[in-house]
Amino acid sequence: MSHAKRFFSDNTASICAEILEAIAAANGGHEVAYGEDPWTGRLDEVLGEFFGTELRAFPLATGTAANALALATLTPPYGAIYCHPEAHIAVDECSAPGFFTGGAQLALVGGEHAKLTAEALAATLEGQTVSVHSVQPAAVSISQATEFGTAYRPAEVAALCEVAHEHGLHVHMDGARFANAVAYLGCHPGDVTWRAGVDVLSFGATKNGAMAAEAVVFFHLGLVRDFELRRKRAGHLLSKSRFVAAQLLAYVESGVWRRNALRANALAQSIGEAAGSRLLHPVQANEVFVALGAAGKASLRAAGFEFYDWGSPASGAARLVASWDQDERHVAALCAALAAI
Amino acid sequence: MSHAKRFFSDNTASICAEILEAIAAANGGHEVAYGEDPWTGRLDEVLGEFFGTELRAFPLATGTAANALALATLTPPYGAIYCHPEAHIAVDECSAPGFFTGGAQLALVGGEHAKLTAEALAATLEGQTVSVHSVQPAAVSISQATEFGTAYRPAEVAALCEVAHEHGLHVHMDGARFANAVAYLGCHPGDVTWRAGVDVLSFGATKNGAMAAEAVVFFHLGLVRDFELRRKRAGHLLSKSRFVAAQLLAYVESGVWRRNALRANALAQSIGEAAGSRLLHPVQANEVFVALGAAGKASLRAAGFEFYDWGSPASGAARLVASWDQDERHVAALCAALAAI
Amino acid sequence: MSHAKRFFSDNTASICAEILEAIAAANGGHEVAYGEDPWTGRLDEVLGEFFGTELRAFPLATGTAANALALATLTPPYGAIYCHPEAHIAVDECSAPGFFTGGAQLALVGGEHAKLTAEALAATLEGQTVSVHSVQPAAVSISQATEFGTAYRPAEVAALCEVAHEHGLHVHMDGARFANAVAYLGCHPGDVTWRAGVDVLSFGATKNGAMAAEAVVFFHLGLVRDFELRRKRAGHLLSKSRFVAAQLLAYVESGVWRRNALRANALAQSIGEAAGSRLLHPVQANEVFVALGAAGKASLRAAGFEFYDWGSPASGAARLVASWDQDERHVAALCAALAAI
Amino acid sequence: MSHAKRFFSDNTASICAEILEAIAAANGGHEVAYGEDPWTGRLDEVLGEFFGTELRAFPLATGTAANALALATLTPPYGAIYCHPEAHIAVDECSAPGFFTGGAQLALVGGEHAKLTAEALAATLEGQTVSVHSVQPAAVSISQATEFGTAYRPAEVAALCEVAHEHGLHVHMDGARFANAVAYLGCHPGDVTWRAGVDVLSFGATKNGAMAAEAVVFFHLGLVRDFELRRKRAGHLLSKSRFVAAQLLAYVESGVWRRNALRANALAQSIGEAAGSRLLHPVQANEVFVALGAAGKASLRAAGFEFYDWGSPASGAARLVASWDQDERHVAALCAALAAI
Repeated sequence: MSHAKRFFSDNTASICAEILEAIAAANGGHEVAYGEDPWTGRLDEVLGEFFGTELRAFPLATGTAANALALATLTPPYGAIYCHPEAHIAVDECSAPGFFTGGAQLALVGGEHAKLTAEALAATLEGQTVSVHSVQPAAVSISQATEFGTAYRPAEVAALCEVAHEHGLHVHMDGARFANAVAYLGCHPGDVTWRAGVDVLSFGATKNGAMAAEAVVFFHLGLVRDFELRRKRAGHLLSKSRFVAAQLLAYVESGVWRRNALRANALAQSIGEAAGSRLLHPVQANEVFVALGAAGKASLRAAGFEFYDWGSPASGAARLVASWDQDERHVAALCAALAAI
Repeated sequence: MSHAKRFFSDNTASICAEILEAIAAANGGHEVAYGEDPWTGRLDEVLGEFFGTELRAFPLATGTAANALALATLTPPYGAIYCHPEAHIAVDECSAPGFFTGGAQLALVGGEHAKLTAEALAATLEGQTVSVHSVQPAAVSISQATEFGTAYRPAEVAALCEVAHEHGLHVHMDGARFANAVAYLGCHPGDVTWRAGVDVLSFGATKNGAMAAEAVVFFHLGLVRDFELRRKRAGHLLSKSRFVAAQLLAYVESGVWRRNALRANALAQSIGEAAGSRLLHPVQANEVFVALGAAGKASLRAAGFEFYDWGSPASGAARLVASWDQDERHVAALCAALAAI
Repeated sequence: MSHAKRFFSDNTASICAEILEAIAAANGGHEVAYGEDPWTGRLDEVLGEFFGTELRAFPLATGTAANALALATLTPPYGAIYCHPEAHIAVDECSAPGFFTGGAQLALVGGEHAKLTAEALAATLEGQTVSVHSVQPAAVSISQATEFGTAYRPAEVAALCEVAHEHGLHVHMDGARFANAVAYLGCHPGDVTWRAGVDVLSFGATKNGAMAAEAVVFFHLGLVRDFELRRKRAGHLLSKSRFVAAQLLAYVESGVWRRNALRANALAQSIGEAAGSRLLHPVQANEVFVALGAAGKASLRAAGFEFYDWGSPASGAARLVASWDQDERHVAALCAALAAI
Repeated sequence: MSHAKRFFSDNTASICAEILEAIAAANGGHEVAYGEDPWTGRLDEVLGEFFGTELRAFPLATGTAANALALATLTPPYGAIYCHPEAHIAVDECSAPGFFTGGAQLALVGGEHAKLTAEALAATLEGQTVSVHSVQPAAVSISQATEFGTAYRPAEVAALCEVAHEHGLHVHMDGARFANAVAYLGCHPGDVTWRAGVDVLSFGATKNGAMAAEAVVFFHLGLVRDFELRRKRAGHLLSKSRFVAAQLLAYVESGVWRRNALRANALAQSIGEAAGSRLLHPVQANEVFVALGAAGKASLRAAGFEFYDWGSPASGAARLVASWDQDERHVAALCAALAAI
């Protein structure tokens, strides 16, 4: 199985050695459960140093849980969450935000390359009437990197947060591929989060080398509120919390977050270059979207490459994702195949 | 107060004599509560004759309850409800569909004059990928008359229902102004509902002369399912149900549904004609949308006319609604004032 | 039908003349909808005078809605609501509290004659461990009069509220038969509510002569919070709000609340006396619970009396409710029949 | 830390070698995510052989998620779930059943040693009136082993299931300590589940040597319904599902489920024997409940033993849990200390 040329998604990837070792190292002895262990106890401090600010961090096993719990903490049941139509929370989470909030609605705001703009957000917020009859604006959620593999620059995040905060909304960032975005931008992790005004981050490690490790990171400490009760009742408080915390600590402290992201990004760049004018979005993380046409897709698949159609099968578009552990020879072969189409 | 020239909405209107008399006539003696009374007991038959088919009808006090309960019966908590961005359920019900369904999401499909088209619905449904990760398409909701005072012709409803049913979706119609639409179309009530494929109707009487009386009408009897349990737990099973049922019976049996609607429609037509080229949507019910500009709105208001801005105050658009009991002299004065702008 | 000897429930009763006239008197002219009318506008003041304190009052059409909306305002989705196993919210509302709160649980605390005691409540609250794993104690709900037709004296309410407040819980009172309790106690309406520490009251008029009129009354103004948004999204904001408010105003201002309650109570007293040693609970409102046995129930029914079994049919217990408009001859006949068993 | 004498809970325990090796063995190569991998693909077959019947099994990371998702699949939002007052779902899951079902209520049925009896269940079900006003009986949930460390014999489970099924209820078993119960009973895993009538099982491995691995096992295949959609929207579909599935496969195939459970049970037996007449419940799994009194608890703690109070601190009761990897010397020391009290 390991020989398949899989470009489906970075969640097909394996666990990197440093993180698997950290799990094994945390094994031994009896530790108090439900987050009262020393590994979980270090998370706030270690992630605080990583981001350069005081914060609260809560480990979780999935990104959907991180997003939905974060949003439910920010949004009342009658709230509106503004996001891009391509956002993972809108497209790929089976109404988890509606479930966790108790009925809140997503309000979609378009934008090129899956990015919200401050201008479009402001126009939407200012063009609507809010009364007891309407859904109440509550939160904005942006993805970093986006679902189209693009990254928000610090100034773009700051402009969005300024509009949101002016209108009394809190800002959530879905960082399932946060490391890829930061590695691309070359900035400090704080620059595209709390320094730009982000209130809460879903900080993902699973796609970038962990087994199952995400964290909800509150930069705005006043928003933590009843998060821990919501997590527990959603079945997302892990009893052996140390093993998730250990993954996150290793991810950050060993530097594999950047090393893995840089490698995946670089491989995606080379795929993007091979795609040339067929490229649909700039490559700013580890995802490449290519207009291949039905024939192009068929020829790649005939050559053993595995990937998802993007949009309807008829659209002719494909998504090619480079994982942190992608085989270089497979990437080289893919580039050659793309160039040949 | 009764002398104000109010064109805010038809829910500012009074109760028509026939319906108030029916309430009084139902008063006297002890009747078994919670719908086990003879008035409620006649609803299925009387509305069945009205629509020309076998049906189940459940009385309710508000239109939002009718819509949300109907949709919750059709849609699982992870479902998607397709509707127009201007739909009452999207704009004016404070996320009631999300609440009653337990988290379902509205999926907005645009269309001129607040009308969905079969083409746009088909394109939306066919352009999306459904999997365990996505919200599950469940229902289509259309409004008759629409929020812009336009009406779907029977063939338009039929085309929409055909697309919906082909994709396994049920069709709900928000008929808060159903009488106005039918009076305008001149068709049989069955022609734009069950004969065209509508599964469930929110049948409104409140705006057209009742005190507080709506019914959820199931044409597709297999969809009634757990409606009665959902109604009860939402606090919408009225103990003295006879007084709501009596309103609905009088509304249909006395013919006031049509008389009131025809009068309101005719007054709206004259307002629409006075508005001339400023008219924003065809007048096909009792609502008139006019591009007045800030100065035009100010001059009308200075002359004592009361109405809502439509969209943001800056848009210059106004909504003028003619109620079933609107004073003809007020309408004449409004027409003169509009012509003078 | 009006000649049936119905002792099923006080919600089989008719509308009293003063309230029906008030509905008619409010009819005429165009009034701004959704509570912006003068009748609704007077509610806070008129009920404030009735209770002798500043308060906020919100009209509703059903008691289940009043209870569930009040509790949802007091209780988070992971909260516990302490109530008696016989409480209407526990037995007769099809999980409305669970629906409106988003998942809160009822915690049942027993007590004689359907009354909670301060001692039992304290023992329950002190005997449990609260942590992130447990449901979070949030509210206490008591019924006045209770489901067994008994009434809490002011000192009993005060003792319960003291225990609740000491533990950080808010107190809700289900007053579907509030007038019957106050008429029995002979106290001021404030004595068993805000003066005793009640935070929020479901103030019922429907059973005691209204058509469909209840109010949620907040004595603790800081708890109103998002009540209006929750009411709207539950479909319980009536567009023609004036007609519910007019009922409540007439109910309080005309004094029918007391007149009707006193009459119903007196009739119940005479039934209770006729029941003699078969009486199961003291008669302190308008409900009488009697151990009739299967034969006793059968003989009453054979004589044309209509009433509900209480508990399982096998229990032999019956509930006999005297309505405000109960025919005295029927009551006399019932008393004679009871005495003859 | 590893030298602490911790008897808090079996979720303080470590991962057993076989399971950690299985995680490492599953690491390597790219595998399709979200359960489309070969490890997850084998679960139905491997657990099917283990239980001796056709079944569907879904891996999850926590027991609360397993319980709540199973119950939400069996119970409508207006349903009642019958369980013991000591059940984990009632006491330790922060209203997760209310959240996942959308408002269902727990109905508590008492019984000695935390066990429901068929008689008590039948009496409860037969003594209540079900109508549109009441919560609708939907499911029974029992725990095997129970929260008091006792085990249901096959005949007891069968009697309970028979009562439940006769009343149209489905049966869920919370098997967080399923292996301990089966090891104690010495029966086949099928004997206390599907052969006795259990419809759905939460099959736990975490407490007995896994890192984070539970499965919802459907024996009644018709009840799977929309389980997968509910799991996804609850954020409980793990992307790298292979690593949870690999734990479960190793747990069952290597036999560690029984080996670990037998060892923990044996240690608990010795503790129970040392407790002598202070024992509060029979020791039938790996939990021991002892009436120690304040002084007894203090002396144990002074000697370095860590454990939870049971009930309020004033109760004098303690819970002592033996984990699969408990140090024998610590157990011997505990037994000596208990004997000396």
